[in-house]
Amino acid sequence: MGYGLLKGKRGIISGALDENSIAWKVAQRAKEEGAIFTLTNAPIAMRMGEINKLAEECNAEIIPADATSLEDIEKLFSRSTEVLGGKLDFVLHSIGMSPNVRKGKEYGDLNYDWYKQSIDISAMSFHKFMQVAEKQDAINEWGSIVALTYMAAQRTFSFYSDMADAKAMLESIARSYGYRYGKLKNVRVNTVSQSPTKTRAGGGIGGFDHFYEFAEKMAPLGNASADDCADYVVTLFSDLTRKVTMQNLFHDGGFSMTGISAEVLEMIKPE
Amino acid sequence: MGYGLLKGKRGIISGALDENSIAWKVAQRAKEEGAIFTLTNAPIAMRMGEINKLAEECNAEIIPADATSLEDIEKLFSRSTEVLGGKLDFVLHSIGMSPNVRKGKEYGDLNYDWYKQSIDISAMSFHKFMQVAEKQDAINEWGSIVALTYMAAQRTFSFYSDMADAKAMLESIARSYGYRYGKLKNVRVNTVSQSPTKTRAGGGIGGFDHFYEFAEKMAPLGNASADDCADYVVTLFSDLTRKVTMQNLFHDGGFSMTGISAEVLEMIKPE
Amino acid sequence: MGYGLLKGKRGIISGALDENSIAWKVAQRAKEEGAIFTLTNAPIAMRMGEINKLAEECNAEIIPADATSLEDIEKLFSRSTEVLGGKLDFVLHSIGMSPNVRKGKEYGDLNYDWYKQSIDISAMSFHKFMQVAEKQDAINEWGSIVALTYMAAQRTFSFYSDMADAKAMLESIARSYGYRYGKLKNVRVNTVSQSPTKTRAGGGIGGFDHFYEFAEKMAPLGNASADDCADYVVTLFSDLTRKVTMQNLFHDGGFSMTGISAEVLEMIKPE
Amino acid sequence: MGYGLLKGKRGIISGALDENSIAWKVAQRAKEEGAIFTLTNAPIAMRMGEINKLAEECNAEIIPADATSLEDIEKLFSRSTEVLGGKLDFVLHSIGMSPNVRKGKEYGDLNYDWYKQSIDISAMSFHKFMQVAEKQDAINEWGSIVALTYMAAQRTFSFYSDMADAKAMLESIARSYGYRYGKLKNVRVNTVSQSPTKTRAGGGIGGFDHFYEFAEKMAPLGNASADDCADYVVTLFSDLTRKVTMQNLFHDGGFSMTGISAEVLEMIKPE
Repeated sequence: MGYGLLKGKRGIISGALDENSIAWKVAQRAKEEGAIFTLTNAPIAMRMGEINKLAEECNAEIIPADATSLEDIEKLFSRSTEVLGGKLDFVLHSIGMSPNVRKGKEYGDLNYDWYKQSIDISAMSFHKFMQVAEKQDAINEWGSIVALTYMAAQRTFSFYSDMADAKAMLESIARSYGYRYGKLKNVRVNTVSQSPTKTRAGGGIGGFDHFYEFAEKMAPLGNASADDCADYVVTLFSDLTRKVTMQNLFHDGGFSMTGISAEVLEMIKPE
Repeated sequence: MGYGLLKGKRGIISGALDENSIAWKVAQRAKEEGAIFTLTNAPIAMRMGEINKLAEECNAEIIPADATSLEDIEKLFSRSTEVLGGKLDFVLHSIGMSPNVRKGKEYGDLNYDWYKQSIDISAMSFHKFMQVAEKQDAINEWGSIVALTYMAAQRTFSFYSDMADAKAMLESIARSYGYRYGKLKNVRVNTVSQSPTKTRAGGGIGGFDHFYEFAEKMAPLGNASADDCADYVVTLFSDLTRKVTMQNLFHDGGFSMTGISAEVLEMIKPE
Repeated sequence: MGYGLLKGKRGIISGALDENSIAWKVAQRAKEEGAIFTLTNAPIAMRMGEINKLAEECNAEIIPADATSLEDIEKLFSRSTEVLGGKLDFVLHSIGMSPNVRKGKEYGDLNYDWYKQSIDISAMSFHKFMQVAEKQDAINEWGSIVALTYMAAQRTFSFYSDMADAKAMLESIARSYGYRYGKLKNVRVNTVSQSPTKTRAGGGIGGFDHFYEFAEKMAPLGNASADDCADYVVTLFSDLTRKVTMQNLFHDGGFSMTGISAEVLEMIKPE
Repeated sequence: MGYGLLKGKRGIISGALDENSIAWKVAQRAKEEGAIFTLTNAPIAMRMGEINKLAEECNAEIIPADATSLEDIEKLFSRSTEVLGGKLDFVLHSIGMSPNVRKGKEYGDLNYDWYKQSIDISAMSFHKFMQVAEKQDAINEWGSIVALTYMAAQRTFSFYSDMADAKAMLESIARSYGYRYGKLKNVRVNTVSQSPTKTRAGGGIGGFDHFYEFAEKMAPLGNASADDCADYVVTLFSDLTRKVTMQNLFHDGGFSMTGISAEVLEMIKPE
């Protein structure tokens, strides 16, 4: 039913938790477009998730990996190239977690051990993915690496706390490694800055639901869904975007470029 | 030989002058991907160009239009929907010209009539395209409009003169109209900020050749070619990027995000 | 009562209409800081305004100038250096007008003659100021040129119409000419992107009042006032900011970097 | 000799190592402008530095603090308000160090323990400064906090390695905490993105000297010096910039907004 955009391509897709996950949708679309891939997630996340269903549907092996463990990531890449029968063409990094946000710690009362964990899990893991891939020479020339991010890296959203800093660092890693991997192997690295999305991760954030509605009224095309995002990520994995690299790409129905919409102006009108 | 990404889609492609033009390549790729479209260019540009060859190859009608003439643009859109048998799904705006650059007027010695012409041709024409399209209701829901631009809209390139200001305005029009057209009809509007490209337009700029080599050494993936750009534009016209709007998308091998590359650092080393 | 930051400096201040104008406040503060200057405005604006009062207070000559007239601008600069007894150290460009906004034309129904006027008055005039100054060699080494702008140049505000495009072009001119004037004479050029301000110009825009309140609730420090802006502009004219150039400087209480504030999140909560 | 811009203000200045340090110059200028303050640096840095000389010159107490130690930072703030006789009005964060850069580890071969140290020292310390200040209520209303950063946070410089990611995170912290501290206490938080500067920190980076010359030729006003930076920081601490917050302010002679200069174009011309 797809276009064959990823025919013959091999990849790794991280972060599929349940059928609301963006990564879940990316896996389904990548399959439709002809790719083969492995799935990965944190051992603990997988116990809660329904990833086995997805693995079956996509005929994909699941390789559990703690995103902070270099050893796990090494296994993830070596096992993936082994299982898939060759070097990789694409990688999706969809990993983020802040203990401070989960436990409701405000930004002025951060627990610094948890802050370090936020950074380690949500940002540094992306560097580890690429350093491991480079050392194993696990990615083909003109391969494509994408990480999911959020606009809190550019502007402050009162509820996003230390995840904003993690995402800013993540986007910097995309540029820094994108430069390096481009020069070395013509591999491109980009981040997709997605609309608020009703996933389990998004849902855990206080005030998220109101914000979702606000964003929906602000963005001229409305919020981009997880399905929309999967379509977009497919184009970034395809051979049609080979010269796009080191970019942070907003996929948000125009939210990022809207100062205020007529609808929001109407909402805030005093009676 | 394409993927069928634009199957059944109708469009207008402006700016194909000769086979080095980005628009020329977009037309060829759009054809391959299953689209039908009309071609347009300024009457004067067409005399110099070889657009008839392209029209034949793509089975496309040529509709000459002066980009500053509202009347011509009205005919372009009404004739296009007539010829193509329905509303449009995509439009490429690839139009720009600065008499000041052509005639070697420096930025501190601009002729203001020519400056106004630069703006009228290179920026305002994009607004006219969209205002006409909206008034004729000529574009389908979820249609896609793309204009080509250059990074001089963000940073100064000593040779680019008043075209920088025109491109900054063009990108603003993309945001402003993108907001409007998104709300009205879910039509998206984006600009693609392309590497320096060896087209006839690029070639006319003094110092262009050295700059091309500099950009080639700066960008980790090297400069994006006109062919690469056509591939990318195809993704933006496809249904896979429906929620991307009001964006300026760098398609430049990473140039825009590179402060300095190791190669350039080497080049500038004193002996 | 000032700090003496502009002691001995000469300048031109445009755009003072009445005591709510930002330019009016800048003139008062520049006077306090020890500067001497001329005042200018459009002949028609001056008839409505109370600029004579300001001129008297600041001991400043008024030199009427139509911002679209090269001849008027030439007189403005030559008369200013004559009256002030030497070359200039600073220039404030605070000029903008859109007939389309004034007459309520929507962005999808622009009158193109008026659009051209918006551009000519609000953006091109800034280039003319600098080209004339350069040709007359009217500005001292390390002089400072500031133009006022608005964030609609970066993001769409539904009510701002074609002024957004004019401001985007204005900011581009600041970069382009800033490069040139820096190389030539170490003159710096910047734009200040100010909060919505209750001036006569701001007041003319539909929906402005609601938006003002929205911005007030969004910006962590609240909206910056005209008085605040005058303080800030004084620092940019002073010798303490000599290496700041080609920048667009947000002076907005943090609005530009706030995605959503807790107050706005509260406002939009359904009952 | 100053203008009295900081008369009666109290502050903390970190990072003065020797007379080439930006922080050293800021201390001298703050003194000239009428401020009183404490000085701080890492215990180890102070052994190498000549900070005692500066302390004497400025009549300032030195309070050693390891920037990764919450306890040290708590002492720094409580001792400062005690010594200075009241709450603070300004804080300079000029702290950054990457073991990976020091030890010549490439970006594709980072030691992750060192990477964490880079982040802890160069970015997280800034959050700790502010969280401690807030908890101690150590800063007056309308106080000003500035951190020094570098443009590698936006674009990749091949020699800057993991410091780029640390600086991106630092700038995010400025926005995130700037939002919070603005709402709470009208305290503003900004970063200054400075030209390459010949300090001991800068000098330790391979290829720095060539890059310095490149930047000098690129920036229309040349590189901003440490002295220039001190002048600029003084304006940000003064009452004249009260509504500027959450901004990253380029202080770089125009480098950031220059795509290519005529001089660089000349340099790269083939013979």
